[in-house]
Amino acid sequence: MQLVEGGITAVRGFEAAGVSAGIKKNGKADMAMILSKVPCLAAGTFTSNRVKAAPVIWDRDHILIKKEPVRAVVVNSGIANACTGKLGLEACQKTASAAAAVLGLPEDSVLLGSTGVIGRQLPLDRITRGVELLAEELGDTLEHGHQAAQAIMTTDTVPKEVAVSLSLSDGTEVMIGGMCKGSGMIHPNMCTMLAFLGTDAAMNPDRLQQALSEVVPDTFNMVSVDGDTSTNDTCILLANGLAGNSPIETEDEDYRLFKDALRYVCESLAKMMAKDGEGATCLFECQVIHADTKDHAKQLARSVVSSTLTKAAIAGHDANWGRILCALGYSGVDFDPDKVDLCLISSAGRIQILEDGVDTGYSEEQASEILSKDEIRAVADMKMGDADAAAWGCDITHEYIRINADYRS
Amino acid sequence: MQLVEGGITAVRGFEAAGVSAGIKKNGKADMAMILSKVPCLAAGTFTSNRVKAAPVIWDRDHILIKKEPVRAVVVNSGIANACTGKLGLEACQKTASAAAAVLGLPEDSVLLGSTGVIGRQLPLDRITRGVELLAEELGDTLEHGHQAAQAIMTTDTVPKEVAVSLSLSDGTEVMIGGMCKGSGMIHPNMCTMLAFLGTDAAMNPDRLQQALSEVVPDTFNMVSVDGDTSTNDTCILLANGLAGNSPIETEDEDYRLFKDALRYVCESLAKMMAKDGEGATCLFECQVIHADTKDHAKQLARSVVSSTLTKAAIAGHDANWGRILCALGYSGVDFDPDKVDLCLISSAGRIQILEDGVDTGYSEEQASEILSKDEIRAVADMKMGDADAAAWGCDITHEYIRINADYRS
Repeated sequence: MQLVEGGITAVRGFEAAGVSAGIKKNGKADMAMILSKVPCLAAGTFTSNRVKAAPVIWDRDHILIKKEPVRAVVVNSGIANACTGKLGLEACQKTASAAAAVLGLPEDSVLLGSTGVIGRQLPLDRITRGVELLAEELGDTLEHGHQAAQAIMTTDTVPKEVAVSLSLSDGTEVMIGGMCKGSGMIHPNMCTMLAFLGTDAAMNPDRLQQALSEVVPDTFNMVSVDGDTSTNDTCILLANGLAGNSPIETEDEDYRLFKDALRYVCESLAKMMAKDGEGATCLFECQVIHADTKDHAKQLARSVVSSTLTKAAIAGHDANWGRILCALGYSGVDFDPDKVDLCLISSAGRIQILEDGVDTGYSEEQASEILSKDEIRAVADMKMGDADAAAWGCDITHEYIRINADYRS
Repeated sequence: MQLVEGGITAVRGFEAAGVSAGIKKNGKADMAMILSKVPCLAAGTFTSNRVKAAPVIWDRDHILIKKEPVRAVVVNSGIANACTGKLGLEACQKTASAAAAVLGLPEDSVLLGSTGVIGRQLPLDRITRGVELLAEELGDTLEHGHQAAQAIMTTDTVPKEVAVSLSLSDGTEVMIGGMCKGSGMIHPNMCTMLAFLGTDAAMNPDRLQQALSEVVPDTFNMVSVDGDTSTNDTCILLANGLAGNSPIETEDEDYRLFKDALRYVCESLAKMMAKDGEGATCLFECQVIHADTKDHAKQLARSVVSSTLTKAAIAGHDANWGRILCALGYSGVDFDPDKVDLCLISSAGRIQILEDGVDTGYSEEQASEILSKDEIRAVADMKMGDADAAAWGCDITHEYIRINADYRS
């Protein structure tokens, strides 16, 4: 597997576009479109929130129930279309219908994504005009993919794209690429994480959904910026089969190769998202090793990156290990605090803070230097078993408060 | 039941003191003592964190296992004595021993409390000197109780005390009073909530523990400032029996009167704690009504006051109801979003924001005015059943970040 330049349009057969349709007040790009030249299989994972935005209901219905071939995705990043009732669902149908008309596709081959303010209805005239603009702008260059990645941003400060290629056992080269937005695990008001991925692999539809369902819990779901879980979280993976490989039907070696590459793509995007958390100055990774079970390892790692007090300490470059140990302690996982080793690692070096639960007498100055970098990792060794997991978050700063105290104004 | 002036020393037979023993760097009061003139029954509730501070281990052992009569409590608010291993437990024994010697009591009649920095050992010379100073300063005036309440503060900006009197069915007047500290549900580094309560009621020891165990989950445990759960959380209730009532043995009318008064005391202290959350400018209460079960009502209410995004919106006086509905949605409780009514209430008035899940077209200006007060309540009507619950939190501001980015420095 190797990293290649670009995002969704690095993959054979995918076009993209991003435009400003006047939905955001500030005139920034706010609508994106993805089009596959041929019909795709689609897999998806969606928010677990009891309150689901209209486009989430639309996509779940189309991907998990109707299972018809997909050609296009239309996204707006100004209004979430969440808590909009029956009108909101009608707006989905009208958006898909407008895209289908201008692209000459069946309405049911169009998926949707929204992010932005909750509770407002979509301005359908602008959405319709936006769809027309997008259709005119579509193209398959890396720049087209990049524009789409920019158009799905809300409080994100950088667009997030990645693409990889891998060789299957028959020598066929397959690609996976995509984009995401979300500078928070969730921002119910700007509605969090949207990820749109494409591949040219030929696959059995069940294997495609299985691969995505297996990868998302270890990647996107291990990111926490503020612990809130959105109404709009969506991750869609389209497969157009243009690579020409013999379709991946079973959980064989090719399936594993594909899933590993998909994991790399999702983990890369997840880390970009954590690092670009609202107001964040660094990516904070917690790696838990030698836990007794995988689920416990994940629970422990998530608890640390979700701890507001730990995040505030990281912002202050303060090696406040008591907060990390405390967050492990309230994770709900049973362990022996007197066995835990803790290290902090960054490009400035590696320092052991705790050995068997006791302060090593480390240099606070060196620890502070390590914490001053823009990618920081805490490794907690539980000495219980063989299970490892990682979770990603960021520090919490004054800027987070500024952004979120007044988001709608 | 009526509110009376003061805290722990408003109750017959309780003396208190607070002094500066030089444990805090800034020279502020950092040790407190409570002494009952006669032996007390003790009840306690403690942190659920897997990592428990040494004084928590000491108190649990004495209250829940040994069950010997208690005469005194010694508290320091400079160092948490958490993650201090065997030396930390020895420090507990030495502190109790020093207090027992100076007060002429058995060592096992002394309980302990600590809050402050994690991972440092107690300076036993200063602790011992502090215990001597405290014994000299003990007194039963309201001012003595007030000084003790001040001496247990960390980042708290105001001391927290309350006392009530109630008449039992035989006409005896009984009092309950106490103090707490904790400007956060938890601050692993300053170690959160400590509450010390006293009553002169004569009670069966099992009824005393039962009353406390029934009241704490609905009061102190419904406060969230930052979602973290401390290594040191402790609530102790001492009963010296000096009221001379016929002892409360069963769950009779007197038990209910006592428990209601205890609930009032704990709820008052819990709200003071939430309102004094680090950097907070207001008390934010979420009341959930008509949920299907009490547990679900509590889970929903806690989810709202714990939502970082909601807290940031409150700080911005922004009636961002999408964040409240979203936090209800990810609480884990099943409900119909299309049935929810939502109101905001403060001294500036009451405004209905949602009716059956839909925006009422309320005035943003009026809502913002309501949210500008220092006590704000959101009422969510789930329309599912008869269960109600309340949870308390606060807004999150720049000041929270400033306090916690650099706590140890």
